[in-house]
Amino acid sequence: MAGSNFGKNFRVTTWGESHGKGIGVVVDGCPSNLPLSEKDIQEYLDRRKPGQSQYTTKRNEDDQVEILSGVFEGKTTGTPISLLIRNKDQHSRDYGNIKDAFRPGHADYTFDSKYGIRDYRGGGRSSGRETIGRVAAGAIASKILKGLGITLITYTKAIGPHVIDDKDYNLNEIFCNPLYMPSKNIAAKAGLYLENSIKEKDSVGGIIEGQVLGLPPGIGEPVFDKLDACLSKALMSIGGVKGIEIGSGFEAAKMPGSLHNDSFQIKDNKVDKATNHAGGILGGISDGSPLTYRLAVKPTPSIAQMQRTINQDHTEINLEITGRHDPIIVPRAVVVAEAMTAITVLDLLMENTHAKMEYLEIIYKQTFV
Amino acid sequence: MAGSNFGKNFRVTTWGESHGKGIGVVVDGCPSNLPLSEKDIQEYLDRRKPGQSQYTTKRNEDDQVEILSGVFEGKTTGTPISLLIRNKDQHSRDYGNIKDAFRPGHADYTFDSKYGIRDYRGGGRSSGRETIGRVAAGAIASKILKGLGITLITYTKAIGPHVIDDKDYNLNEIFCNPLYMPSKNIAAKAGLYLENSIKEKDSVGGIIEGQVLGLPPGIGEPVFDKLDACLSKALMSIGGVKGIEIGSGFEAAKMPGSLHNDSFQIKDNKVDKATNHAGGILGGISDGSPLTYRLAVKPTPSIAQMQRTINQDHTEINLEITGRHDPIIVPRAVVVAEAMTAITVLDLLMENTHAKMEYLEIIYKQTFV
Amino acid sequence: MAGSNFGKNFRVTTWGESHGKGIGVVVDGCPSNLPLSEKDIQEYLDRRKPGQSQYTTKRNEDDQVEILSGVFEGKTTGTPISLLIRNKDQHSRDYGNIKDAFRPGHADYTFDSKYGIRDYRGGGRSSGRETIGRVAAGAIASKILKGLGITLITYTKAIGPHVIDDKDYNLNEIFCNPLYMPSKNIAAKAGLYLENSIKEKDSVGGIIEGQVLGLPPGIGEPVFDKLDACLSKALMSIGGVKGIEIGSGFEAAKMPGSLHNDSFQIKDNKVDKATNHAGGILGGISDGSPLTYRLAVKPTPSIAQMQRTINQDHTEINLEITGRHDPIIVPRAVVVAEAMTAITVLDLLMENTHAKMEYLEIIYKQTFV
Amino acid sequence: MAGSNFGKNFRVTTWGESHGKGIGVVVDGCPSNLPLSEKDIQEYLDRRKPGQSQYTTKRNEDDQVEILSGVFEGKTTGTPISLLIRNKDQHSRDYGNIKDAFRPGHADYTFDSKYGIRDYRGGGRSSGRETIGRVAAGAIASKILKGLGITLITYTKAIGPHVIDDKDYNLNEIFCNPLYMPSKNIAAKAGLYLENSIKEKDSVGGIIEGQVLGLPPGIGEPVFDKLDACLSKALMSIGGVKGIEIGSGFEAAKMPGSLHNDSFQIKDNKVDKATNHAGGILGGISDGSPLTYRLAVKPTPSIAQMQRTINQDHTEINLEITGRHDPIIVPRAVVVAEAMTAITVLDLLMENTHAKMEYLEIIYKQTFV
Repeated sequence: MAGSNFGKNFRVTTWGESHGKGIGVVVDGCPSNLPLSEKDIQEYLDRRKPGQSQYTTKRNEDDQVEILSGVFEGKTTGTPISLLIRNKDQHSRDYGNIKDAFRPGHADYTFDSKYGIRDYRGGGRSSGRETIGRVAAGAIASKILKGLGITLITYTKAIGPHVIDDKDYNLNEIFCNPLYMPSKNIAAKAGLYLENSIKEKDSVGGIIEGQVLGLPPGIGEPVFDKLDACLSKALMSIGGVKGIEIGSGFEAAKMPGSLHNDSFQIKDNKVDKATNHAGGILGGISDGSPLTYRLAVKPTPSIAQMQRTINQDHTEINLEITGRHDPIIVPRAVVVAEAMTAITVLDLLMENTHAKMEYLEIIYKQTFV
Repeated sequence: MAGSNFGKNFRVTTWGESHGKGIGVVVDGCPSNLPLSEKDIQEYLDRRKPGQSQYTTKRNEDDQVEILSGVFEGKTTGTPISLLIRNKDQHSRDYGNIKDAFRPGHADYTFDSKYGIRDYRGGGRSSGRETIGRVAAGAIASKILKGLGITLITYTKAIGPHVIDDKDYNLNEIFCNPLYMPSKNIAAKAGLYLENSIKEKDSVGGIIEGQVLGLPPGIGEPVFDKLDACLSKALMSIGGVKGIEIGSGFEAAKMPGSLHNDSFQIKDNKVDKATNHAGGILGGISDGSPLTYRLAVKPTPSIAQMQRTINQDHTEINLEITGRHDPIIVPRAVVVAEAMTAITVLDLLMENTHAKMEYLEIIYKQTFV
Repeated sequence: MAGSNFGKNFRVTTWGESHGKGIGVVVDGCPSNLPLSEKDIQEYLDRRKPGQSQYTTKRNEDDQVEILSGVFEGKTTGTPISLLIRNKDQHSRDYGNIKDAFRPGHADYTFDSKYGIRDYRGGGRSSGRETIGRVAAGAIASKILKGLGITLITYTKAIGPHVIDDKDYNLNEIFCNPLYMPSKNIAAKAGLYLENSIKEKDSVGGIIEGQVLGLPPGIGEPVFDKLDACLSKALMSIGGVKGIEIGSGFEAAKMPGSLHNDSFQIKDNKVDKATNHAGGILGGISDGSPLTYRLAVKPTPSIAQMQRTINQDHTEINLEITGRHDPIIVPRAVVVAEAMTAITVLDLLMENTHAKMEYLEIIYKQTFV
Repeated sequence: MAGSNFGKNFRVTTWGESHGKGIGVVVDGCPSNLPLSEKDIQEYLDRRKPGQSQYTTKRNEDDQVEILSGVFEGKTTGTPISLLIRNKDQHSRDYGNIKDAFRPGHADYTFDSKYGIRDYRGGGRSSGRETIGRVAAGAIASKILKGLGITLITYTKAIGPHVIDDKDYNLNEIFCNPLYMPSKNIAAKAGLYLENSIKEKDSVGGIIEGQVLGLPPGIGEPVFDKLDACLSKALMSIGGVKGIEIGSGFEAAKMPGSLHNDSFQIKDNKVDKATNHAGGILGGISDGSPLTYRLAVKPTPSIAQMQRTINQDHTEINLEITGRHDPIIVPRAVVVAEAMTAITVLDLLMENTHAKMEYLEIIYKQTFV
């Protein structure tokens, strides 16, 4: 039941429901002496909050983060960092008619089965707003990674049938359209597709793709805390994600070994690979190549169309969901995926600092008077 | 670095390398009073060991399990259960020429980067034999689940381009062919495909599909230890797995919400769903429907064809891998997937026993004198 | 570095420094459906806050707790409970002259060694105010235990040389004097002793004793998570505690086995013990008798007397600590000890709900439709 | 229920019962490239095994350790190290008459309450033989610490009323008498005391004292994984230990602050303390001074004298324990205490390698190509 903490070294504990007093996170284990301010974190939160696209709901929230502990004179102290984001705009009246209904595709029924009680307002803890804490923590992790030369790029690869192919990619486009798609062209088509979906009172799914660049080889802990295994847990825990693949992913299942294997070579005096079907991970450990993954995101469950379902009394009913709902969550989930990736990668980087006797000797020669 | 243990309540610690003295596992946290014998475990190990199919290698191992602790007069005591499987047939000479090479698709390079040392014989800890410990532990977990009315069915859904479609399914066929495919027809075609692959000194990938039936609703711990998140970690940690999807998986990314949503209904006085695109999980918690997942397995990296690669001195070389190697690992990985699924589901079932005040009251009314 | 979380099932993550914006805790894993309000928690916090005794400092804090999440319509939802206590009265100027000094008996030097940075104001994270989060979480744990018939009694057993002997005990006196001593007589003597200490600009230590009544047998997880081992970790983590003993404790080292062994007997048809030198724990598991422990608390390090020490430049200096400091911390630590005991006992009670197959069967017969 | 694993980075999982097939341990997370052989481990086990003193029982065991994994060409690979010690001499007939009795001072009753089943032979998992796995793991940890300049000294400080005072100490005497007492004189007196105890069919307790020298400052993780808290859990988990104190321990409760505080000073250009009442730990973090602790060990519960007790049917009975039993366990527990100390200190040393940004930068500048 203590399912709200993640990580072993860079430990993240999130809390908060959609209509509670606030949402937050405690980051325990952040190394000391990292310059950190609200601005560093707000930048990431702003990539998540609603209202910045014609396709996301107009729930008017400031979502301003406040650092309550763990930072002194602008630097982390190594003690727990508590971040708080107050909930402001909570339109309780939007949810009245679904108080007792088990909405299809939502966690109402399963939360009710598990806990025997649930905060029905806005989905409570199962609401997408729960990811605010994750993104805040991910901002801190990203800053540390950046300082070590590791960068993350995350974007929408597909919306419905509109997929970005290898030839379409232009990473500079990511922040130039509200769908975070690295292609002006496909973003436009996807936009029209979404408008049509809204008219039909329906919703749409998509695919998120992420890359991690500059990750040194050696990161990941066989056999159970492998880099791909930990990433999968982190990313599949995001609401709405129904699948993950690394490198060639499901395509690899159809390839022969002679094609899928990435040959090693030496380039500029460094170890390099001729191809990267492995997606940067071999045997669960990073190999120095770009780490690539893809997530399948299901269509938003809250649609305005009439749906058959049941309520808490187990009576079959017709349900019409009113109120504010995104026809698509993929663009908003992009920064959540990036945050979870940053957290996972950092956690394993920190784990690796005691992998060899050599590392212990380096650190303790330094410290010993 | 302590990456060889899995689970919070039903805690599994595996150990052992391909060419070490043995392989084993310690299961800590198994409830007491479960009847358990070597036979219960051997049955699962036998589904894994080589030599039972014309398509798997002829490495002659008994892989007989020995229970060293945790069982008394035929029942578990609640104390740790240590299982040992001695390695017998270890053909060291098969690996001589690759002692210094970084084989493409294998973990040689990454283990070397991480640890600065590796047991190069047979892949050491990165060898598929590492899964023996997992399967042994999974046998125990499966027995407990079975007693609670929960059953697992796992099989090969695809080999290369040969995929089993909805209309082909015949679950009775699973144990009737060495590929564990639930279709006599497709199994035959896949067989020919494999024979051809062997001739071409190449290898092949595939897809494993698994189902969990009879799982009660309420299992899974939001937000990070969700059932799908934990399963993903467990299954993606299996060597060779490059992707996982739950329910509709990557198909969901292309579906509209009106189609993907599963309507609730009442059937035989119980909560039921009209469809199951969710794959049995909503909001990270089981919903009472069959849990379904699919894994993408890459083609076996060890192929007899010549490959370009480098060695430890960073010299580019041509590599020819001799010795015994499976052209496909999918059929042998089926029981590994089933084992990891059983372990994960049981761990979360055990976690759920203190989810509500009601459960604590039930248990402690019982115990209180 | 992630040392601020405690517990496996009832997981407590505290945060906050003496002079930061606030102090708090996130409780993850609290069972659902427990009635809970701020009042339940404030009652415990009030036993901790300064100003309620002539012997504790006059730092004027409200220390009012706010529940930010995890409670809905007066009951816990099973989701994380975030509690916040804002810091108000922070007299920064009290600490100016010790900014660079390593105060004897304090953690200044060790925090500086570890993190290379520290919030010097009021001890930062090493301040006694850090325990506010623990006490808040302990209030919730205590409420759950109480509902299961388990009660905790904690008090000051000794201050300096003034010790409460078996013949002096009157538990009704605990809340009738500001020292929380179960003896009017000894409390008066201790009071005079303290006044004298203040005059001499010195400080005083003492002993806390605690009991847990009504704990059923079977609680504790051999061999490393034994009840006494877990309690020891919990209680020794309280600042200022330098020793712990269970039952006869250090006296047992001098007793013969014929005397120390507690004979079993049947009383009122129940298993009972003739004596309780074991302190309620055998083999690390509760035996149904009262659990008793004792803590040694060192004298408060901040004294007004001049002390020799060094500063950050490694220059030897004379240090005079000004400002507000308790001559004794024991009475305020009593509720902290009680809180940590409640948290530990509850965590292990929750762990025990899946100890036997019988428990799994009971729970899952209930849940299965 | 998964109580048999200890540690976060240097993770130790022990298994095995007194009369099962064997006893063992899996060490997961040992850094790679440490030279390691059976000899390194056997040396520590030999300090534990029975038969080497006229005061310990003559149970004839070889207790020879076998390394089953994790070591290649004489060095650790970073993969799990599995150690096995077969049980040989198991005199089942010694235990027949106590099959159903709940022996006073033993864990029979509590194991029975918890699990509903127990291996009654020799105490099963609650037997002192369980510590073999701990000692084996501690041998590895000690070797690593030694290489980093950290040494452990552990010995018997008292047996019954015979206590070694400051003036008596001669550390060279520790291995010169079977009681591991650092005083020839007191060891002789204690010896006579023990002989008398055997004649009276009784048993005796004592005190173990341990020191850790050369530990750098900065080790320990506030607020819950403090060095003293973690040590307390580790040491109190040893069977028979009823109390622990650090530095002045219970004496501190009676000292004024002006005396207990250790002044800092500079000596040989290094930070030093004039006294060490703190026992080497401040705020839960090592301060560079010798770490000192003391354990209270209860008298062995198995005595030959007649005792009143009950059996499983809850009938009151007279019990006479026959067979082989130590009149004192303290000397054999000395190496167990040393092992647990080594494991705990190493675990926290490894945790500290990512405490500051500076450490991450050092490691990753090294690794980055």
